[in-house]
Amino acid sequence: MGGVAYFCGVEPTSYRTHGCGNLRLSQVGQTIRVAGWVRRVRDLGRFVFVDVRDRSGILQLVALEGTQPYEILRSLGREWVIQAEGILQQRESPNPELPTGEVELRVEKVQVLNTSNTPPFLIEDETDGQEELRLRYRYLDLRRPIQQRRLELRAEVIRTCREYLRRRGFLEVETPMLIRSTPEGARDFLVPSRLKPGSFYALPQSPQLLKQLLMIAGYDRYFQVARCFRDEDYRGDRQAEFTQLDCEMSFVTQAEILETFEGLVREVHRKVADTDLEDFPRLTYTEAMQRYGSDKPDLRYSLEWTEVTSWAQTQPVPFWQSRRTFWLWLPEKKASRKQQEAWQTIAKENGASSLAFIHQEGAHRTSSLAKFIALDEIQLPGDGMGLWLTTDKLSALGAVRQAIIHDLNLTPDKPWSVLWIVDFPLFEEGENGELVAAHHPFVHPHPEDIDRIETDPLSVRALAYDLVINGNEIMSGSLRCHIPELQMRIFRRLGLSEAEAREKFGFLLDALGYGAPPHGGCAFGIDRWVMLLAGARSLREVIPFPKTASGADLMLGAPAPIDPQQHAELLRWLGQESI
Amino acid sequence: MGGVAYFCGVEPTSYRTHGCGNLRLSQVGQTIRVAGWVRRVRDLGRFVFVDVRDRSGILQLVALEGTQPYEILRSLGREWVIQAEGILQQRESPNPELPTGEVELRVEKVQVLNTSNTPPFLIEDETDGQEELRLRYRYLDLRRPIQQRRLELRAEVIRTCREYLRRRGFLEVETPMLIRSTPEGARDFLVPSRLKPGSFYALPQSPQLLKQLLMIAGYDRYFQVARCFRDEDYRGDRQAEFTQLDCEMSFVTQAEILETFEGLVREVHRKVADTDLEDFPRLTYTEAMQRYGSDKPDLRYSLEWTEVTSWAQTQPVPFWQSRRTFWLWLPEKKASRKQQEAWQTIAKENGASSLAFIHQEGAHRTSSLAKFIALDEIQLPGDGMGLWLTTDKLSALGAVRQAIIHDLNLTPDKPWSVLWIVDFPLFEEGENGELVAAHHPFVHPHPEDIDRIETDPLSVRALAYDLVINGNEIMSGSLRCHIPELQMRIFRRLGLSEAEAREKFGFLLDALGYGAPPHGGCAFGIDRWVMLLAGARSLREVIPFPKTASGADLMLGAPAPIDPQQHAELLRWLGQESI
Repeated sequence: MGGVAYFCGVEPTSYRTHGCGNLRLSQVGQTIRVAGWVRRVRDLGRFVFVDVRDRSGILQLVALEGTQPYEILRSLGREWVIQAEGILQQRESPNPELPTGEVELRVEKVQVLNTSNTPPFLIEDETDGQEELRLRYRYLDLRRPIQQRRLELRAEVIRTCREYLRRRGFLEVETPMLIRSTPEGARDFLVPSRLKPGSFYALPQSPQLLKQLLMIAGYDRYFQVARCFRDEDYRGDRQAEFTQLDCEMSFVTQAEILETFEGLVREVHRKVADTDLEDFPRLTYTEAMQRYGSDKPDLRYSLEWTEVTSWAQTQPVPFWQSRRTFWLWLPEKKASRKQQEAWQTIAKENGASSLAFIHQEGAHRTSSLAKFIALDEIQLPGDGMGLWLTTDKLSALGAVRQAIIHDLNLTPDKPWSVLWIVDFPLFEEGENGELVAAHHPFVHPHPEDIDRIETDPLSVRALAYDLVINGNEIMSGSLRCHIPELQMRIFRRLGLSEAEAREKFGFLLDALGYGAPPHGGCAFGIDRWVMLLAGARSLREVIPFPKTASGADLMLGAPAPIDPQQHAELLRWLGQESI
Repeated sequence: MGGVAYFCGVEPTSYRTHGCGNLRLSQVGQTIRVAGWVRRVRDLGRFVFVDVRDRSGILQLVALEGTQPYEILRSLGREWVIQAEGILQQRESPNPELPTGEVELRVEKVQVLNTSNTPPFLIEDETDGQEELRLRYRYLDLRRPIQQRRLELRAEVIRTCREYLRRRGFLEVETPMLIRSTPEGARDFLVPSRLKPGSFYALPQSPQLLKQLLMIAGYDRYFQVARCFRDEDYRGDRQAEFTQLDCEMSFVTQAEILETFEGLVREVHRKVADTDLEDFPRLTYTEAMQRYGSDKPDLRYSLEWTEVTSWAQTQPVPFWQSRRTFWLWLPEKKASRKQQEAWQTIAKENGASSLAFIHQEGAHRTSSLAKFIALDEIQLPGDGMGLWLTTDKLSALGAVRQAIIHDLNLTPDKPWSVLWIVDFPLFEEGENGELVAAHHPFVHPHPEDIDRIETDPLSVRALAYDLVINGNEIMSGSLRCHIPELQMRIFRRLGLSEAEAREKFGFLLDALGYGAPPHGGCAFGIDRWVMLLAGARSLREVIPFPKTASGADLMLGAPAPIDPQQHAELLRWLGQESI
């Protein structure tokens, strides 16, 4: 979080003349009033010292034995709320850890504004509270300075985005939260309608269709900081509700969209991470898969696969004959037998047929392929480790690469890797071999590939792109179909009849019939981006009131049963009788 | 909307060099490319003229008979999307109605980007479309320039609020949308939980408790542009979802809160309505009720009631003896018999016992009280109309005042009336005579009245305030109870036992026990405020995708039935078996 300050300090009010954290040597001698929370009390007999904290920082209060403030300060408990007035003086022993460490307030008047129970964990950056306890008392967890800095950083990221987009002609428009359930994508959260029993609203998974309608309505450039909802099984870090920076533009090419949002990302990183990002490399989906086995490669690490299939198939290695083989070289590195076995397991689990190793240390070479090939004939650049991965499933390349980075605890070459992945496929195969939309069904095909929609759909590229930061997909977007006939061709290819398409997306097809401009856009996952910028390890650390993996808000106790009368009434609205 | 421009014009892209609305005489002779929608085509034989529209405005295209663009321009239909390039030239007959009215584009190249069906209503500020049709095709309704200006104004109001609040030390924090149902207030929208069958989330009616928790967490000043939800019977203009500017501050007095938000309102009106508002008068609730019969009086009109009970009770008017009588004088005004009768009906419907009139025109006086009192003895300031309203229900004063303003079509004295109402009561009587919270149960009582909570609760004033603009409550707020014991006294007075209070608001009572600072705040109704600023007549005109009075989104077709399998599954999650 790099010492960048976003917050200007607390405003004076009748309760205070200054923020605790805003006092410096230059104010020594002044009469100062502060208000805040008692961080700790140190009673040294002749003196009592109290650290008081507000959002701007921490200040040391001091009172001398025999004075009236002395008795009050001694009696304070942790996290009591107090107001103190006195003269600011220079500290005899400065505290270099604190911005206010050269001064202290010699208290003349002090008042207890509220008491506090003893908090269940330490209100410090390093706390002894386990996550469940901290989530239950989230208001105390959020009182920790590190959490306050994280929410300030979050606000600053969003503010910077807003300002940039406004400057570039984007208008912020609010789209509704009570919308219609669409059959695509993840599961919707549903909201029963009381006024129309048996009918439901859905909470939006994204404002996708609404922003396309805004382009059709002529708004030219739209954005919104939008709350989105997905009723998924929350693996790991996923949240039932999340925040998305949702954008859409008209009369633009893909190149112009990428330029616009590259500018946005640079500005955010400059403002909040004090970093000038290099130009963003662009990799096609195919390249990314072949070189890194992932459509979101983490390029802070340079390791990269090279295809060696044609050489491999000339070698007398039986399991190299029928599939593609890829090579990866790690200079100066060696893996233990246990690590090699673990990576082989990962390779197999990801559909690879084999993973073989060669190590060189000085004149010494070892390899799991020693019985098949003459090790001396292999050309190696020096000491290190080489891997041959044989697979037709390229994601195995990514899984092994990831495991190597993790298990060898590799040092990144640079703090930030930001890149574009472009030319995603338009379609992919679903679980039962059927054709499904790789992104969503409104994506515009690559103009060169439109002819092959019917004949060779899996080869059709999309005008779709992702922005990848440090191995995380932070933004995803595409150009959209704006010609109704083309949209209908894609629906048909996805197995939707005209009638079914009308039933599901009637209002979109209608709207496309009334003069849709060429348009496209994207959405940024704000939570994850802020997590990376804050150096946090979990989305829950940068969401003000997060939910657990099972979708519970431990502080509010939500979800919760409702009273029986309300429940019975609800079942009536649901049109239970129709079942 | 007073000629204030917020939007800087459309950015050049490969599709265009300029926005249609941004061209002026100074650019004559330049090669210009624009893209937009065909507003209309006028084929004059030797020339064809086409008005093309984008978000920045309207430009006239022209092509001469015999040129290739001429044939294309002639063939265009309304709302087709085109791209046109040519030389900007001065118009022979300028159109003073349009900012671009002195120029036109002599088209050299034109391309149809998309066609359009004939729209079901005129895409003009003055449209022939009825509201239901316009809501069904909201994307076409929103293409009307007046609607684009309204959404731009909305964005600018919100942006101005954000900037002001940030400058004053407020941090924007997002609170969750899937929260716990609270038994207070209006009806919640409920969201069944799949992972915890039989349990529910509720959509927030406001972030009230969460923002108080943020103050307890030490955030000092918070704001959020928050979507809120109420499952009400939508009388008139109410919307199921609405936008609120939600704010909270710590370590402040009521006076400091009012000063802060008075500054905000002034800044917004200065920026978007080009108006310097006068100082905001402050009326107590009691004064407002006695003088205007309303806690949201519209003071653009000066008419005002004066209590004359003590005089009235000396008069031989039988129905003036047992209740309070109020007097209102309207110089130069006279009401018809029909109007007088209508106002008498309104007075009765609002609980008044009588409404009597006196008119003076020159030497001529008439009154409905002629048989009781000597008309000559009444002192009148000149020609005009006087009313005596006898009532113990002060709201009757307001109802009659409102009817007079409306029926006599009075001219406002000034365009804006902005005032504070303060000293609201803390409690009021509920439908069955029980004590209920007048605002919500977390409001801080007036310090002078705390002693009377138990003994005379209806006389206890609250530290609560409303901001009233042109007769609309635009903002409402209060200081909150931050001392747990005081909060518990109020819960008890509202008939909640400790156990019930814990059950309903346990997390708040817990949190108040861990060092709550003195705090208070408010929420602005953004939709209504923008409606006033835009001079619009309905909230639906300033909400991008509004719902009808019955909660329906006519464009999306929401709410809607879900498929039977999803429905059956939902009933399972609802814990139907427990019924």
